[in-house]
Amino acid sequence: MDIAEYRRRGKEMVDYVADYLENIENRDVYPNVEPGYLRKLIPEMAPEEPETYEEIMKDVERIIMPGVTHWHSPYFYAYFPAASSFPGMLADMLSCAIGCIGFSWAASPACTELETVMLDWLGKMLNLPEEFLAGTKGQGGGVIQGTASEATLVSLLGARSKALKRIKAEHPSLSEAEVLNKLVAYMSEQAHSSVERAGLIGGVQMKKLPTDGKFAVQASALMEAIKTDKAAGLIPFYFCATLGTTPSCAFDNLLETGPICNSEHIWMHIDAAYAGSSFICPEFRPLLNGVEFADSFNFNPHKWLLVNFDCSAMWVKKRTDIIGAFKMDPLYLQHDHQESGLVTDYRHWQIPLGRRFRSLKLWFVFRIYGKKGLQEHIRKQVKLAHEFENLVLQDDRFEICAEVIMGLVCFRLKGSNELNENLLKMINISRKIHLVPCHLAGAFVLRLAVCARTTDSKHIQFAWKTISEVATELLRKQPQ
Amino acid sequence: MDIAEYRRRGKEMVDYVADYLENIENRDVYPNVEPGYLRKLIPEMAPEEPETYEEIMKDVERIIMPGVTHWHSPYFYAYFPAASSFPGMLADMLSCAIGCIGFSWAASPACTELETVMLDWLGKMLNLPEEFLAGTKGQGGGVIQGTASEATLVSLLGARSKALKRIKAEHPSLSEAEVLNKLVAYMSEQAHSSVERAGLIGGVQMKKLPTDGKFAVQASALMEAIKTDKAAGLIPFYFCATLGTTPSCAFDNLLETGPICNSEHIWMHIDAAYAGSSFICPEFRPLLNGVEFADSFNFNPHKWLLVNFDCSAMWVKKRTDIIGAFKMDPLYLQHDHQESGLVTDYRHWQIPLGRRFRSLKLWFVFRIYGKKGLQEHIRKQVKLAHEFENLVLQDDRFEICAEVIMGLVCFRLKGSNELNENLLKMINISRKIHLVPCHLAGAFVLRLAVCARTTDSKHIQFAWKTISEVATELLRKQPQ
Repeated sequence: MDIAEYRRRGKEMVDYVADYLENIENRDVYPNVEPGYLRKLIPEMAPEEPETYEEIMKDVERIIMPGVTHWHSPYFYAYFPAASSFPGMLADMLSCAIGCIGFSWAASPACTELETVMLDWLGKMLNLPEEFLAGTKGQGGGVIQGTASEATLVSLLGARSKALKRIKAEHPSLSEAEVLNKLVAYMSEQAHSSVERAGLIGGVQMKKLPTDGKFAVQASALMEAIKTDKAAGLIPFYFCATLGTTPSCAFDNLLETGPICNSEHIWMHIDAAYAGSSFICPEFRPLLNGVEFADSFNFNPHKWLLVNFDCSAMWVKKRTDIIGAFKMDPLYLQHDHQESGLVTDYRHWQIPLGRRFRSLKLWFVFRIYGKKGLQEHIRKQVKLAHEFENLVLQDDRFEICAEVIMGLVCFRLKGSNELNENLLKMINISRKIHLVPCHLAGAFVLRLAVCARTTDSKHIQFAWKTISEVATELLRKQPQ
Repeated sequence: MDIAEYRRRGKEMVDYVADYLENIENRDVYPNVEPGYLRKLIPEMAPEEPETYEEIMKDVERIIMPGVTHWHSPYFYAYFPAASSFPGMLADMLSCAIGCIGFSWAASPACTELETVMLDWLGKMLNLPEEFLAGTKGQGGGVIQGTASEATLVSLLGARSKALKRIKAEHPSLSEAEVLNKLVAYMSEQAHSSVERAGLIGGVQMKKLPTDGKFAVQASALMEAIKTDKAAGLIPFYFCATLGTTPSCAFDNLLETGPICNSEHIWMHIDAAYAGSSFICPEFRPLLNGVEFADSFNFNPHKWLLVNFDCSAMWVKKRTDIIGAFKMDPLYLQHDHQESGLVTDYRHWQIPLGRRFRSLKLWFVFRIYGKKGLQEHIRKQVKLAHEFENLVLQDDRFEICAEVIMGLVCFRLKGSNELNENLLKMINISRKIHLVPCHLAGAFVLRLAVCARTTDSKHIQFAWKTISEVATELLRKQPQ
């Protein structure tokens, strides 16, 4: 394919994408395929000779689309949103064409510098404490990770390395393995599975803290764990607080756990993967109060800030804390400017070496929407969640299972878990809307997350109508 | 920005990208900017109100492009290639629009299934042993990781978990920490820095094996290390063999180290990040002989197989080995089909949870080029490397520092390291071509990697002319 054909096919693809998104409501949101469906439709081997572009695009409709879960359909209410916007897509086209691998400043200075500045922009939008910003002289700063899982792991590794140094300095007779064996990290029992996984990867104990009636970690739970573990000779070193848990969007108590972490030399990382985007609105910003006690903070613009996946924003107060956990400097990656102080090499901030030019997406989206446009998007989606909440509250058969603060509503039919499992199954089999469940205090609960950028009141009304009708049908079949 | 504007802007972006790539030779390959250049050109805060698209695109030329290292310029010879092709870019547009987060089969069945089948296609193109393929009943299979660094880390964590289980079964009295403390992993002293980093992250000792005159690890070095370490009470558990090292593109001896690993319960991982693409050509496939002894194998189609970054292909013989190191299964990620045997949930194969629909890029590229087209690309670039090698060999002032096997030529001026450091500096300051150095056996060496898809004989001739002229100028200034 030469440049002339790319010009033609590229424009066709723009139209294909526009048509797809314009008409996405006409497709079943959840595909009707069985495992293994695709292999049967595709040859066993790659072709020897080139095929035509037309053949491939025909197969996109024939083979791919029937197996796609349409995350950007306004009938998609599962998991959490995956952000998407036209400026984000345009920026990704540009990023793909530039195609630099920005592991160091020299590998493409614009790639590194735009990222640092965009994370400062975003940090200011969130009103993050000054210490988290890079500016021209700061010790902190931001970085784009691929996912919140990676941000959590990077923070845990930074904390591990810092704790190792401190404890070995205090007790020179202890071996590294002995220290590692004593380290203990904490997370909420409601925290994302990736936090537990970070502990597993980092080879440290990770303990789950119990939560209160609102599914949030309070200071008492953290204090209790620290006391017990210290008495057993362990060394608490890391706490991952969650703002907006995956099951119910609960918020751990930063203002009370933060000072405890600080006085106990415990690295506090805040995972606000989903909820973080809302903090650009003054009315939601108080939920972030206490971030001043944290060592690192992360949220995903690729969830709720209209920046296409992947773009997970992470800030640290002291960049040397995480760089120190990773730094390796072979000659082929060194360059003249690396010790200048103005320059950061992002490869030392992350698990992979290579990295795409992802800050272009932030730049395009921030400028096309403006801060106001982004705030409007958040506010609209929160309002839609409350609209759904009210529909549920007006129906005596149902109950709301957690306070609705952001764009997530946890609800269930009053009754058994089995009843609710059947309800969910019937809803998803209808393929009109798509939801996933969670467990809250032993109860099987349905989660409705407002996801697509284009979700509107009419879609929420339709979702409720579908759920309500399925419930009526289900309850009719139930033995009295 | 609504759909109508996206249609217009998208088509403009296609033309911008086409123009950029069509005229990339007219831009300096390496930017002439100082650290901090970009911050001065950009406001301190994100705009409150929306800006226009025209303003942004003007700023792309004014702010971004002057700071870009043009990886796809035919005058770019640094690091290793970053693959790029038009079908790859088109597939990425589609992937971005579908925008599913394919962490599980149910999250978008097509995303998971196309990936499994494409990795089978690619495995067959490489003539990988059957055990690495998924098929419909295989225990192995492939996955797309973001980077080789992640593949290495995942393999090391899989190996660690497997070794822990085995050793604790044999010695129930040992604690996990005691076992971890005894584990030792091996890599070539020439291996990529990410291998050492994987050991650091995984909390295990990583020892560097000495290499022979061709910068390759031989069986004797591995045997010697195993013997010494076992005598010291350590437990060797992992060896990362490299095919095509970053400094000089050396090939570790798989056929002799492989059987040792197998008999010693050492997990052998093969990192062929760059060179792996060449194994689709029968004449280069012998370099992969011995892969049958490996537990896992990885290479980057995003380096040399015309698939835009990121796309790092990894295969394992037993998928349960790596899944076992990670598996976490919260309710909101479970789905009806997950225990069916036909389904794999790729979140258990990798560090991040989220993942893009990257197999579309493989599918588009394989079909538009055909296996033959891809082979032609590899062969052409190897030929260009030999063309450059011959130019160097004809000039008595220079020497070739490592055998030229793929698209990388290591060379230097006969003389001191300082002389060569100055040569490199002068070449890069000219901004006509861009190279990075390496160290080989204490010598400072220049690396010329054939990178851009469009690099041709005339560019190689120009590169040599530039280098030769700079050398003449440099030598003229030298004291006799």
